[in-house]
Amino acid sequence: MTLRNLGALMIDPVILKGFRDSLPEEESIKEEMEEKAKKVFSSYGFEPIDTPTLEYASVLLGKGGGETDKQVFKFEDNGKREVALRFDLTVPFARFMALHFNELPLPFKRYHIAKAWRGEKPQKGRYREFTQCDFDIVGEDSAESDAEIISMIIDTLNAIGVGSFKVHLSSRPLLNRLLSSLDLSSSSQEILRTIDKIAKIGKEETKRELLEIIGNENKTERILSYVESGKGGDFDDSYRKILSLTGGDSEESERLLEVYSLLRANGLEEFIVLDPSIARGLDYYTGLVYETFLDEMPEIGSICSGGRYNELASLYTKEHLPGVGASIGIDRLLAALLELRKSDYATSRVKLVLFYKKEESEKALTSARKLRRDYFINTDIYLLNDKKQKKAYDYAEKKGILYSLSFEEDGYVLKNLKSRNIFKSEELKEIANAIENN
Amino acid sequence: MTLRNLGALMIDPVILKGFRDSLPEEESIKEEMEEKAKKVFSSYGFEPIDTPTLEYASVLLGKGGGETDKQVFKFEDNGKREVALRFDLTVPFARFMALHFNELPLPFKRYHIAKAWRGEKPQKGRYREFTQCDFDIVGEDSAESDAEIISMIIDTLNAIGVGSFKVHLSSRPLLNRLLSSLDLSSSSQEILRTIDKIAKIGKEETKRELLEIIGNENKTERILSYVESGKGGDFDDSYRKILSLTGGDSEESERLLEVYSLLRANGLEEFIVLDPSIARGLDYYTGLVYETFLDEMPEIGSICSGGRYNELASLYTKEHLPGVGASIGIDRLLAALLELRKSDYATSRVKLVLFYKKEESEKALTSARKLRRDYFINTDIYLLNDKKQKKAYDYAEKKGILYSLSFEEDGYVLKNLKSRNIFKSEELKEIANAIENN
Repeated sequence: MTLRNLGALMIDPVILKGFRDSLPEEESIKEEMEEKAKKVFSSYGFEPIDTPTLEYASVLLGKGGGETDKQVFKFEDNGKREVALRFDLTVPFARFMALHFNELPLPFKRYHIAKAWRGEKPQKGRYREFTQCDFDIVGEDSAESDAEIISMIIDTLNAIGVGSFKVHLSSRPLLNRLLSSLDLSSSSQEILRTIDKIAKIGKEETKRELLEIIGNENKTERILSYVESGKGGDFDDSYRKILSLTGGDSEESERLLEVYSLLRANGLEEFIVLDPSIARGLDYYTGLVYETFLDEMPEIGSICSGGRYNELASLYTKEHLPGVGASIGIDRLLAALLELRKSDYATSRVKLVLFYKKEESEKALTSARKLRRDYFINTDIYLLNDKKQKKAYDYAEKKGILYSLSFEEDGYVLKNLKSRNIFKSEELKEIANAIENN
Repeated sequence: MTLRNLGALMIDPVILKGFRDSLPEEESIKEEMEEKAKKVFSSYGFEPIDTPTLEYASVLLGKGGGETDKQVFKFEDNGKREVALRFDLTVPFARFMALHFNELPLPFKRYHIAKAWRGEKPQKGRYREFTQCDFDIVGEDSAESDAEIISMIIDTLNAIGVGSFKVHLSSRPLLNRLLSSLDLSSSSQEILRTIDKIAKIGKEETKRELLEIIGNENKTERILSYVESGKGGDFDDSYRKILSLTGGDSEESERLLEVYSLLRANGLEEFIVLDPSIARGLDYYTGLVYETFLDEMPEIGSICSGGRYNELASLYTKEHLPGVGASIGIDRLLAALLELRKSDYATSRVKLVLFYKKEESEKALTSARKLRRDYFINTDIYLLNDKKQKKAYDYAEKKGILYSLSFEEDGYVLKNLKSRNIFKSEELKEIANAIENN
């Protein structure tokens, strides 16, 4: 299958609205981020999976239709099947678990880094194609797996190097206990979604909306006290306030405390904030929930969110599959990295460029391969096809390459393109050492 | 956006025909393959890019319609745009170069590992969703860049470890010289496509079809001699035969020889076969072309194909952008790896699983994190929730984990799950050493 050449008719090389190309500078950083994340995931015993990009629309969306479907890329394929591009990695994972739980080691610990698509209105930092990075433990309802996921979030973000951040922790069932004690269980979904917006719409507007739903000032105030009980920042204080508002010790509060103790045992308490304003609008959460904010860029919102869901795959199977997991929004995190930490990533993976003239091509290709294979130096080659060296230096600068190498009659000339220092040697080994030791 | 729960209505967790899930065992190997390839690409100074999954149908397919379009996943999006899922990485790359050549370092050396989609009839080893791995040098028409691409193919396949293989090399313009001397230039496309099938349909059928196109026995025989001039296997012999059939030395034969000499200078001649039966049906090739076959599994066809094209982006821009590149079919290569070399890859990346009882959870999580962070040992944890240890060992076996660790009053017990050897120590460091030194 090739592109038909239609003679003189030229095609405008445009991209669809909400989509984009990723150029090497950005893509290299993204690749490096993902590699660092995968290393941490592997260190925790997690393994990769993949699922199809396209699925039956009925599998992804249920059998009804609805408002949110408009955001889904959905169409009829050539075989008249209603198909859709996945809009997240969670729903396909639920389908995956229902299909494969029998073959998999349980608890199943997986990660999945892949694209998803939504036809949302494009806006700054929001694209119709985006990369998600999800990780979950399925098949165990325990404080240990809750703690492992949170610990893995912390280690991953630290490995990526996004500066300081906090995981805001909250308990969905404790909030439910409060609502139940106030006789508000029937409106819990609405209340939850309103609370979830507090960081965006502010306390006053939240109060107004809650009052409208609840119709009782006293109850509204109690909910707001609960939501704000994390404000002091001290875990023990906040925990005591929450206890008193939810009727004292309970199984749910025990779980929260247990997870926190496990994290503290690993010295991770500095990354944790108990924050009952975190509600997570999605209705599948049944336990602890969390969102993660960068200290330097809180305005971009949560870069990693998740929690415990105990019936994820129940739409597809009667098998009880409790799980816990989280999702990193890779694009948002990448945007933050480019803003905050670009310099840490700016050094090109290509260390050296070998400038050579046509008559030196054999020497160039053999030297380059030796540097790559024997000395593990990423080496580019650049053919000097005119007398002006400027083009060659422009090339190196555009790629962010630090060293150039060229030939002299009796050896090699290594040049640091920043400091302009020169080092000469007849031995490639010495050249490699000079690069290594700088 | 979440999945609507429709109560008792359960959804069948089926996958679309021609699509599939990738489970950890396979996905881990795929990930490892890709990491190894990326390392080699980086060592040659290549950088990653990405392009959108969805593009305007007119950009991917040209403005007409045609037979091949039926294989493309094409639809109208919610904004009434005709869009399509990319069916390869070449066409989007041509569009990418036309759009960005001004911003990029030239020659531009890129790789792109990503999915593509075709609605082909699913058959063994052929899926509607597949992963391609493309790499190209654009902006230079030189023997050096031809040689670098071939050298990179060889180093990449060796790094992945697919056993022995040969790159079958041929020259498109030398074949054109022959056809021109036989006054057959006007049928060159048809002839090319027929030659391209020779490995599949055999010599006799090729001869019959060629004769039908050409209508002249003599000319047909000359073309067949040319096609078969690589049969002896010796480069110099084959080269001489080709020269005599194409009218002696020419610019085109010079280029072939120059590329071969550069590869030989790096000791790579053992991987090269001069094979004029390689024609590559695609019409954008203008120079050397190649296909790569595994010695142990020639029947799966070429696992890496490519060549020089000197007008790739000409549909989108008047800028002259000569290029050379190749494409690895990741799925086909993965299938071969699973068949031939599975044992080399079978060792799980997860080295150790820590078995613990509920009352040991704090010790378990802190020991695990220490092993991961201080000793770089990928460590899983497994909660023993009943007295039967069998489940725990099944878990380790399913994940291919070699060691288990558990607690004794005064220390740790390390067990090699294959040899059943036991090592005890009070120090985690000693445990880590015992694993490292085995």
